[in-house]
Amino acid sequence: MSDVSKLAGIESSAISLLTRAVELDSNKRYEEAVTCYQEGLQLLLEVLKGTKDESKKHRFRDKIQEYMSRAEELKTLVKQEKEDGKYHEQIHIDNGSKGNSYEKLFSRFFDNNVTSVEIEDPYIRSTHQIYNLLRFCELVVKLKCPVRTITLTTSRDENTQKQEQNLGQVKNGLQHHGIELIIQYSTTLHDREIRLDTGWVIKIGRGLDIYKGVDKFAVGFCDFDLRPCHETTIDVFHRKNMKGS
Amino acid sequence: MSDVSKLAGIESSAISLLTRAVELDSNKRYEEAVTCYQEGLQLLLEVLKGTKDESKKHRFRDKIQEYMSRAEELKTLVKQEKEDGKYHEQIHIDNGSKGNSYEKLFSRFFDNNVTSVEIEDPYIRSTHQIYNLLRFCELVVKLKCPVRTITLTTSRDENTQKQEQNLGQVKNGLQHHGIELIIQYSTTLHDREIRLDTGWVIKIGRGLDIYKGVDKFAVGFCDFDLRPCHETTIDVFHRKNMKGS
Repeated sequence: MSDVSKLAGIESSAISLLTRAVELDSNKRYEEAVTCYQEGLQLLLEVLKGTKDESKKHRFRDKIQEYMSRAEELKTLVKQEKEDGKYHEQIHIDNGSKGNSYEKLFSRFFDNNVTSVEIEDPYIRSTHQIYNLLRFCELVVKLKCPVRTITLTTSRDENTQKQEQNLGQVKNGLQHHGIELIIQYSTTLHDREIRLDTGWVIKIGRGLDIYKGVDKFAVGFCDFDLRPCHETTIDVFHRKNMKGS
Repeated sequence: MSDVSKLAGIESSAISLLTRAVELDSNKRYEEAVTCYQEGLQLLLEVLKGTKDESKKHRFRDKIQEYMSRAEELKTLVKQEKEDGKYHEQIHIDNGSKGNSYEKLFSRFFDNNVTSVEIEDPYIRSTHQIYNLLRFCELVVKLKCPVRTITLTTSRDENTQKQEQNLGQVKNGLQHHGIELIIQYSTTLHDREIRLDTGWVIKIGRGLDIYKGVDKFAVGFCDFDLRPCHETTIDVFHRKNMKGS
């Protein structure tokens, strides 16, 4: 399991992960940086195990030490910020950028403790907007986290009946997976955010509607990682002890 | 990075991967079994590193030895079968089963050597069938392998113009990703198979059309891992030295 070319492959994966970690770190995206540091370190440890050259080994050990301390520092920092209710992370999606499926953006917030999700988004009305909601819900189902309720607050479409019918299909589908979709309509809604009962608050400037349209049969129509995005800012906060309050 | 609960988590992941490996092994799905053995072993090695209890360490070492030999055996077997042109693997998808997106089924065949793909499927005609093709093509794009041409051979729809127009959109989209889609129509086509120029031949009883329909806004409409499937048999062969022949 450890020939030279395989080792080189692992080394280059480690380098690209750690480069990404440093980049995220300098952009203050600490939670993601920690994940990247950890995954990169895991690989670098493997490379170290397989390396015979002593001076190389020495270099690897230094790097591992350095990144490990930084990852530990960041973990403490993130924990402290959450404790203080001061955690704030900003994700900026550039105009036209790709690779921003809900899965990529939101997976890391759905851990084994989240049991309910609240979505406030005034525009879950037209067909493509209801598909946005569906994709978000499919992600929740797929991640197999213990979510039992999703509460959607949105505004009424002119075609109320159609909106209710379509949202009804989302609700039915979720029921088969043991998740209740609660739908509320509001006329005064302005915030666009997703709240998890674990304390995460994800504010998306545009709500769920961050993807540009593409031709009906063009690459990116089905796979949203291949869809270009509108420019979007996502702010992530953490409310300590929000659960049950 | 290594407290007790984390270690327990890694151990249970290792066990589930290795259990899956043994299962695949006994179903003669050797290529997949090797992957699972390797991933499981990787984790088990990590657990070994973190374990202090000597008798436990001993048990882990035995298990690692055992699975490693089996994985090596299978690798040799698969290689030999490919050499002899005798490789044959059968995947059976049960009626109503889920978790069978094209990604899950086909990703492992798209390595760094594949440059062209041929798809023979008489039914890439109606809207949902063209979406099947699109999803397959999106997978190829996403896997970032060096594929430059995809050749589709299918039959004419009654509504020829609409079929051409829709396939044209798939073609245009792929062009932006440096892939040429060549579309051929045949009246005598009967085989349903996907051939890669690396030698893999994937024969799918039903062609790409393996998913059951669901309500337009139901869970599984967008994410095909959540769609129930029709009963399907997939036979995988390998043609040695097919490239350039």
